[in-house]
Amino acid sequence: MRTRVTDMLGIELPIFAFSHCRDVVAEVSRAGGMGVLGALYFTPEELEMELKWIDDHVDGRPYGVDVVMPASYAGSDLGVDSPEDLVGRLQGMIPQGHREFVDGLLASHGVPPLSADADAGKVLLGWTDATARPQVEVALRHPIALLANALGPPPADVVEQAHAKGVKVAALASTPRHAIKQVEVGVDIVVAQGTEAGGHTGEISTMVLIPQVVDAVDVPVLAAGGIGDGRQMAAGLALGAEGVWTGSIWLAVEEADTSEVVKQRILAATSRDTVRSRSWTGKPARLLKNEWTDAWESQESPGTLPMPLQFMLISEALRRIGRSDATELATFPAGQIIGTMNQVRSTRDVVFGMIEQYVEAMERLGRITNE
Amino acid sequence: MRTRVTDMLGIELPIFAFSHCRDVVAEVSRAGGMGVLGALYFTPEELEMELKWIDDHVDGRPYGVDVVMPASYAGSDLGVDSPEDLVGRLQGMIPQGHREFVDGLLASHGVPPLSADADAGKVLLGWTDATARPQVEVALRHPIALLANALGPPPADVVEQAHAKGVKVAALASTPRHAIKQVEVGVDIVVAQGTEAGGHTGEISTMVLIPQVVDAVDVPVLAAGGIGDGRQMAAGLALGAEGVWTGSIWLAVEEADTSEVVKQRILAATSRDTVRSRSWTGKPARLLKNEWTDAWESQESPGTLPMPLQFMLISEALRRIGRSDATELATFPAGQIIGTMNQVRSTRDVVFGMIEQYVEAMERLGRITNE
Repeated sequence: MRTRVTDMLGIELPIFAFSHCRDVVAEVSRAGGMGVLGALYFTPEELEMELKWIDDHVDGRPYGVDVVMPASYAGSDLGVDSPEDLVGRLQGMIPQGHREFVDGLLASHGVPPLSADADAGKVLLGWTDATARPQVEVALRHPIALLANALGPPPADVVEQAHAKGVKVAALASTPRHAIKQVEVGVDIVVAQGTEAGGHTGEISTMVLIPQVVDAVDVPVLAAGGIGDGRQMAAGLALGAEGVWTGSIWLAVEEADTSEVVKQRILAATSRDTVRSRSWTGKPARLLKNEWTDAWESQESPGTLPMPLQFMLISEALRRIGRSDATELATFPAGQIIGTMNQVRSTRDVVFGMIEQYVEAMERLGRITNE
Repeated sequence: MRTRVTDMLGIELPIFAFSHCRDVVAEVSRAGGMGVLGALYFTPEELEMELKWIDDHVDGRPYGVDVVMPASYAGSDLGVDSPEDLVGRLQGMIPQGHREFVDGLLASHGVPPLSADADAGKVLLGWTDATARPQVEVALRHPIALLANALGPPPADVVEQAHAKGVKVAALASTPRHAIKQVEVGVDIVVAQGTEAGGHTGEISTMVLIPQVVDAVDVPVLAAGGIGDGRQMAAGLALGAEGVWTGSIWLAVEEADTSEVVKQRILAATSRDTVRSRSWTGKPARLLKNEWTDAWESQESPGTLPMPLQFMLISEALRRIGRSDATELATFPAGQIIGTMNQVRSTRDVVFGMIEQYVEAMERLGRITNE
């Protein structure tokens, strides 16, 4: 298969796989697509280790890294460059009532406190300029082919740094207006993401959004949101995209380091079991719908806080829930496609199954058109 | 083009056009697709006139009629068969606080009362068994090829009546479970409709929904929701559908009897200017987002009433708004596709433009696949 994107990146299949799991990233790249590692949860030191591992296992195939540099967030105007100082200033902005709501929610579900919390410092993640830039620096020291950015256009100097190293830059857009802004700062590929996608997402569906973005920009567009099989891949390309960007389908593959509880929830879920909610990060993101997301919509909810305060507020709670039996509160980003996932498969199987189905879809379309 | 649907109905193009406007219905059928007249707003006598007109203008081409027989609604258990008696019983179920909220909203926007209201009796429309059955009887006296039903499986005896006349039956589904139920009562074609569609709609996007429904049933499936151009038509077929069902794109064609104010609003809207709301009928429907839909979401809102009470409550208000200058309150069903509509075109142009774009999309897909 050949599009401007496969040419640009030297890949055989225009399939991009976003995952926080290095094994999935390496496996998709080795299968001919492009794995993209989500850097969000890693400290710069951890990210260095992950990328070193990928370098050692990807057989020289191209891969990418995804960072989150939001165009706007609370504290972005404080002029604080040190992550530690920023955390201190931001903690003071979280109202006591919100802390009490989270404590009460956990107490009512019998979630015990943590005896030790090795990740207690991970409250900002890569959700600020101060914390994402060190990730970018680490990423650009590795032979990556693509740097992707979520939540708005990346800073122009980051695009320049990437280009200086021969690294292409992609950015996620949920409206044509976003896409135009991203191209203005030099983005090479726009990932147009429909509302059905997992994680941070807009309101417009993939079916409606992709042609609008394709018409709005000259750079190649990837279709994201609701892409899980070869029929959806064919549909994404029919809409004008030059490749597809997938995410949720990698949560339940053999290689994924997703917890067993989460995998089982995904396999059991229907496409109606997700919801767009601000309860994870303060910006709308599609999550598995459960008692956690319901609680934040309830009468008792104090409302969510702006990014990055909401995640700072809940990060310890998420870890406590993760180590408890309160699986009804275990929330995580998931797209509507989880409704079609009902067995654990290997990453390689998913990639090749998608291509097989794509070819079948094309043959079927040919018969419909020509008869 | 050829699918099981074109064979079943004797049409050349697997394009279905839902419209309340007879001119659009006849024009699409004459262009080789299938126009489907929405019967909802018509009394049986009016529907008779509309269908007579279509019979006289459709050049013998197949066309269809769409009715709304909801599987559940307030008053369905009252055992009242007469529409007049049903209205009386239902009026008593509308709380005074709701009437005051509507009156207050109109007063705050300076909407004057009506001096005469010829349509004052139109409060139930075809939203009950008692009011939709007479529509079905009228429709089956005409040479229609298709009877479509929204909001659940049609009653089994209605399906039998249609089949006895050689009329095929379609039903709209927004989940695979709905689709299976519809096939169980004998439906011949399932219209799988994604959340981006205008009017009554579910939560799952077209991209995710279509393959699920195709896999769940043996009858042919039409893709609905977000279908406006030939790329989207190709995408719908790639997903496994055997035709596409369109609606919102016909609101702003030359032949549409949509008011000028509404047409201008549609041409100016983006795909983010719609919202799923219960404020029209009591069931979730995608509408143009404006001060009307906002008011029902506000702190002061008394909440919406179940179908058919909500429309009974607001029907006079909608007519008053329609004849006033308060265009900021003029609400109507509209899908996300309205964001791509920015000029008034003829119905014929839309159909043939769609086919031209479909062919281009297929050629482009061929190049991507084979290079």
